[in-house]
Amino acid sequence: MKAVGIIAEFNPFHNGHRFILNHAKHKSQAEVLIVVMSGNFLQRGEPALINKWRRTQAALANGADLVIELPFTAATESAENFARGGVQLLHDLHCDTLCFGTEDGDSIPYEALAVFYQQETARFDDLIQERLAEHYTYPNALTAAWEALTHDTWPNINFRQPNILLGLQYAIANQLGNHPMQLLPLNRIGAQHSDEHIAHEAFASGTAIRSRVLEGHDITAFIPENTQQLVTEATKHTWADYWPLLHYQLLLQSPAQLSLYHGISEGIEYRLINAAKKANSFSEWLSLVKTKRYTVNRIQRMALNILMQHTEADFQLQQQKTYHHLLGMSTTGQAYLKQSKKTRSFPVVATFSKAPPGYTFVDEKATALYQLPFKKVSANDYTHPPIRIEL
Amino acid sequence: MKAVGIIAEFNPFHNGHRFILNHAKHKSQAEVLIVVMSGNFLQRGEPALINKWRRTQAALANGADLVIELPFTAATESAENFARGGVQLLHDLHCDTLCFGTEDGDSIPYEALAVFYQQETARFDDLIQERLAEHYTYPNALTAAWEALTHDTWPNINFRQPNILLGLQYAIANQLGNHPMQLLPLNRIGAQHSDEHIAHEAFASGTAIRSRVLEGHDITAFIPENTQQLVTEATKHTWADYWPLLHYQLLLQSPAQLSLYHGISEGIEYRLINAAKKANSFSEWLSLVKTKRYTVNRIQRMALNILMQHTEADFQLQQQKTYHHLLGMSTTGQAYLKQSKKTRSFPVVATFSKAPPGYTFVDEKATALYQLPFKKVSANDYTHPPIRIEL
Repeated sequence: MKAVGIIAEFNPFHNGHRFILNHAKHKSQAEVLIVVMSGNFLQRGEPALINKWRRTQAALANGADLVIELPFTAATESAENFARGGVQLLHDLHCDTLCFGTEDGDSIPYEALAVFYQQETARFDDLIQERLAEHYTYPNALTAAWEALTHDTWPNINFRQPNILLGLQYAIANQLGNHPMQLLPLNRIGAQHSDEHIAHEAFASGTAIRSRVLEGHDITAFIPENTQQLVTEATKHTWADYWPLLHYQLLLQSPAQLSLYHGISEGIEYRLINAAKKANSFSEWLSLVKTKRYTVNRIQRMALNILMQHTEADFQLQQQKTYHHLLGMSTTGQAYLKQSKKTRSFPVVATFSKAPPGYTFVDEKATALYQLPFKKVSANDYTHPPIRIEL
Repeated sequence: MKAVGIIAEFNPFHNGHRFILNHAKHKSQAEVLIVVMSGNFLQRGEPALINKWRRTQAALANGADLVIELPFTAATESAENFARGGVQLLHDLHCDTLCFGTEDGDSIPYEALAVFYQQETARFDDLIQERLAEHYTYPNALTAAWEALTHDTWPNINFRQPNILLGLQYAIANQLGNHPMQLLPLNRIGAQHSDEHIAHEAFASGTAIRSRVLEGHDITAFIPENTQQLVTEATKHTWADYWPLLHYQLLLQSPAQLSLYHGISEGIEYRLINAAKKANSFSEWLSLVKTKRYTVNRIQRMALNILMQHTEADFQLQQQKTYHHLLGMSTTGQAYLKQSKKTRSFPVVATFSKAPPGYTFVDEKATALYQLPFKKVSANDYTHPPIRIEL
């Protein structure tokens, strides 16, 4: 069976996502659609608005055949590690095509750019370091390096569009892996990823939809009908719910303890603690910590690693224990899993309680943490089986 | 100046406490009354109902001349360490008399019993170990040892009265120290320490008063008039307020991590974690953890050390850094402090922000933790000066 893969967050699942799923399957002419989806914590260093099981149901209801969880140690990382983690899982599943949404879709030579990056990595690194020394944020330094180094050959690429950089990370990771996929960039329609305002009639960005949900506005126009109940009835999770726990960690731990957590370095730990002594809310803390050098997303990722008590040692350990956490599957997806059994290297875990030892401890922590502020949570992730649909 | 000392919790300050303060000064004929008072966390492993500043004000308003904080590392320990910590501070202040409330007051030969214990420590230890092996709780094993070993010489002492064992710990610690005080046991009146019901008209136990306060009943009959406002207007702190933070620690930390905390050993960490996976409240967790072998107080002390992230290493470090945290003083108390300056070994700390390095970090954590569940706390302990009264 031919398979097409997508790496996604679905925070929450909306019409734009359905559009991409449909087109991915249609354009790739694949029989199986694999989604690698972030769990309960996301790339911007924040909790998913809605838990992963509901988001899995939405994906299955709209064309996904397999939903595999992108582990915490990839899902909450920089674009580079996020892309590498997702691509790695798709490679292991022998997926044929990787589809991703992008701006200026078809006109960008992703493969060629990835090859160029491979050849010129040293120059990229030098230039990025120069820009960082000038207090650029990392994403801005990276953009600047792409602009400077590719300008002669490809003068017309707008690297400032956020999904282009992510697409490049996919292309680079894909090239490095052991089973490169064909790339299928698709033009995003209707809205930029982070647009806060809703412009198009039926397509709105995740950011805009999240704002509307939290403000109690109607979002039914922007979400597939078969998914609306999953969103409206869900418990909504935001950073504000986890702030008391983060505050506790920041006030009780010493700078030396904080610096053991993944992503905390360069003395930022002192700044994080001092801000916590003054702040009474997450947003207040964030605005006290923010500097020219650190993006909000990067600070949120630091906060998340502190909240998760996720040490650098645990991060490194987890790198040796890659696995597929199966969140959901259709009958087709199940058949594909069976077929790909012999060629896979990573174990498939159907429920955490049956995982091989040492593989799932970080994601089990993420699961416990996500539920913690909400007393009554119906499903215990530790024993939650994959969601199945007949298709 | 002659000084009399008392070691107390004042949780909250009530008529029985005023009675003891008055009699201590009167019977000892001392000019200065020193109170060594627990801070915001107490010997039963629970938060003080009312913060230490309000309790200090109550003590000063009812006869205390100096209020010194018993540090976290003594205040939240077994009776033995609690007594040793308090007595150590009074010795350093060259206090002349130690007064304590007890049952069967004057009839018990505390000094003689302490001497006997010193001579027979090995036999005590053996007997205690035997009883522990039979799954006695530690307090019961200790009581049994006292009963067995003293029966021939002192057949009429009822060691099951809780304050007698505490009095004995004071007597033993006093004998070991470098400046032994005269002992002045005083009969407690009206109520046993832990009586839940209120029998006597004006004297009720701390336990009974706390229950009444939390149930919203009137307690003015049991509290000195000059102290009532301090109690009624105070924010009330209970374990329930800290449960979300404890729950977080128990669900996110591994058994190996928990076992680094002071007082967690013998594999109890597995039991603590498993109970946390099922419990939705502190009391539910406590009842799941409880066994014949561990008293509620001991489990609460474990819980407190986990909540405080108080490692065995920190506990040991703090033992080398004993200090006097000055919570309050009268003019007389201030004069006494000045007079005792030359003979003291431990530094006097007026505010944490001016403490010598390394002395106050545990108590600063306790301070931050105590305030954490309550967004708006008026006084910042880090810079709070001692309370002064003119007397």
